Amino acid sequence: MATNKIYVAIIGAGGVGKCFLSQLEALSKRRPTPKLSLCYISTSKKALFNPDYSIAVENVLQDLAASSKAPMSLPQVADYLATAPSKVILVDNTSSQDVADTYPLFLSRGISIVTPNKKAFSGSYKLWQDIFTAAATSGAKVYHESSVGAGLPVISTLKDLVDTGDEVTKIEGVFSGTMSFLFNSFAPVEGSGGQWSAEVKKAKELGYTEPDPRDDLNGLDVARKLTILARLAGLPVESPTSFPVQSLIPKELESVSSGDEFLQRLPEFDSQMEETKAAAQNKGKVVRFVGSIDVATKAVKVGLEEFDKSHPIAALKGSDNIISFYTKRYGANPLIIQGAGAGGEVTAMGVTSDLLKVLSQIS
Amino acid sequence: MATNKIYVAIIGAGGVGKCFLSQLEALSKRRPTPKLSLCYISTSKKALFNPDYSIAVENVLQDLAASSKAPMSLPQVADYLATAPSKVILVDNTSSQDVADTYPLFLSRGISIVTPNKKAFSGSYKLWQDIFTAAATSGAKVYHESSVGAGLPVISTLKDLVDTGDEVTKIEGVFSGTMSFLFNSFAPVEGSGGQWSAEVKKAKELGYTEPDPRDDLNGLDVARKLTILARLAGLPVESPTSFPVQSLIPKELESVSSGDEFLQRLPEFDSQMEETKAAAQNKGKVVRFVGSIDVATKAVKVGLEEFDKSHPIAALKGSDNIISFYTKRYGANPLIIQGAGAGGEVTAMGVTSDLLKVLSQIS
Repeated sequence: MATNKIYVAIIGAGGVGKCFLSQLEALSKRRPTPKLSLCYISTSKKALFNPDYSIAVENVLQDLAASSKAPMSLPQVADYLATAPSKVILVDNTSSQDVADTYPLFLSRGISIVTPNKKAFSGSYKLWQDIFTAAATSGAKVYHESSVGAGLPVISTLKDLVDTGDEVTKIEGVFSGTMSFLFNSFAPVEGSGGQWSAEVKKAKELGYTEPDPRDDLNGLDVARKLTILARLAGLPVESPTSFPVQSLIPKELESVSSGDEFLQRLPEFDSQMEETKAAAQNKGKVVRFVGSIDVATKAVKVGLEEFDKSHPIAALKGSDNIISFYTKRYGANPLIIQGAGAGGEVTAMGVTSDLLKVLSQIS
Repeated sequence: MATNKIYVAIIGAGGVGKCFLSQLEALSKRRPTPKLSLCYISTSKKALFNPDYSIAVENVLQDLAASSKAPMSLPQVADYLATAPSKVILVDNTSSQDVADTYPLFLSRGISIVTPNKKAFSGSYKLWQDIFTAAATSGAKVYHESSVGAGLPVISTLKDLVDTGDEVTKIEGVFSGTMSFLFNSFAPVEGSGGQWSAEVKKAKELGYTEPDPRDDLNGLDVARKLTILARLAGLPVESPTSFPVQSLIPKELESVSSGDEFLQRLPEFDSQMEETKAAAQNKGKVVRFVGSIDVATKAVKVGLEEFDKSHPIAALKGSDNIISFYTKRYGANPLIIQGAGAGGEVTAMGVTSDLLKVLSQIS
């Protein structure tokens, strides 16, 4: 039977996933047509699905918690969705490499994907190629705005620049809310700032870091985002470990057993960071943790750099991200996007926005 | 005969129009499918069209100059396009109110529209309603990214915020490249800046103003952009003259006969602007020409305001625009978009990008 329904399947119901569900519910109430219909939702332990592909969005989290069904395997999910009576959009709200690895299968079977999951786009270059080849062949769409800068229009802007024929020469910015918060407090434009180890401790207490702060300080999260942007700008970057990434974890603390022990011993290394701060201050500058892509020389790098106090990167506030696109058309002054680059609601907003874009193209 | 062609019709071949044509030609070469096919192009004096709806994009400006055909009337264009053998996108690269007034007719006949023309969206509220009602009824699309901030992702970002259910509380920014240049030179964050009349003269010599600088200084261009953003944020603003707009034209010079005479007499009024600058300086601030929309109180206004020197609006460079979106999700720190907000290439980029978006939805 022909139908104008578009089915939505969701994997993951953590922080971002919960915010997305509430946005989806509000959306269904605001614009009832075309009818988005939830047909599958799973966490790592439980799932909701049924033979008529119909699940109520209201109270879905309670229903999921009460469900006795285990999640399908990923190939089973692909089978289930590929035989749905109408087109399907899969929303991957996990940060799982396994789910990301299955994107080519989903896409080749005509299932569109929207996701904040960085893993698919910042893993091996082969996976990137497989994903976009599968999408081009089947016509299914794949959108991942929130994989860089959460809901900020970073990916869409870069795509627009490239698609309309502009020449992107350089991308530079602060891509981590955690790093932004740390350096805006540790080396502010005005005042002397706090001690490095104390700022890291405070950031953790405020919930701005991963449970083990080393997962932020190793720079890998920023490297993943740079990998995505560099590839969109046309550079075939092999992986997030194939270019220089400066880790802020002292060598001696790389292998301590816990985040707590790390935090306890971090003050021993404050003098190193103080020197870095003082060196910048002596030049009238401040130090920031940035990522940059120089398209002409194909140089991608992540690490500490010094900026004039009047530079937009120096003037950043709170845990904001800032991304500057230098292009041929924009000339000397870059196109700049700035704002919160992390948080459940704004990350989910990027996902919801992508969902609406795919919907406008496939319905 | 069924065809997967999408036809493009273009009205206007001035500064933006020429840049758009060169982007369109480059685009056709880069991605030959789906096939965009030019079927009509006109200036105010000449036109190119033919019974098989096929015009070569290459050398189209020379062909147009050599054409002996006059442009069709706007209703004739609508008839011609509505009977094309496939879907049509009309690109309005004029700033004509007459063309804008015809959008409801084009849209009601299934013809999609992309345009940098502000007139349609900042004229009467009835025209705005007629346009979006016609589009909703026929399913034709209407995109106008470059009507605010040229190619900067301003309209698309505001739409994404609204469509995903965020609550926009305030929009504030510098919306005119001319005003940006003038105030960044007249009242810079560092140094004392130039004389007002001298800066206006310099801006005109550099081509940053309209032929008569009063067309920038009256604030109407900014008021039109504010009208568009306010309406997108949900406020039914009646027209760009229905809220307070501060004109920087001294009353005594409003009716002088020419822009040249205006410039010649402007130095007589420098002391007024000097006082404004000094008043801000005494508070450690700088003065800027901004527009703002307070959604809760429905207050829209355009005029001079003072900003702390560390405020992003104060730190703007050259002729850049800056637009800050304050929303419920983004909290205290706004989502900020910054960069060149005028110029043929970046304005045309917004048009080309819109064309690609419509194409992805109707092909």
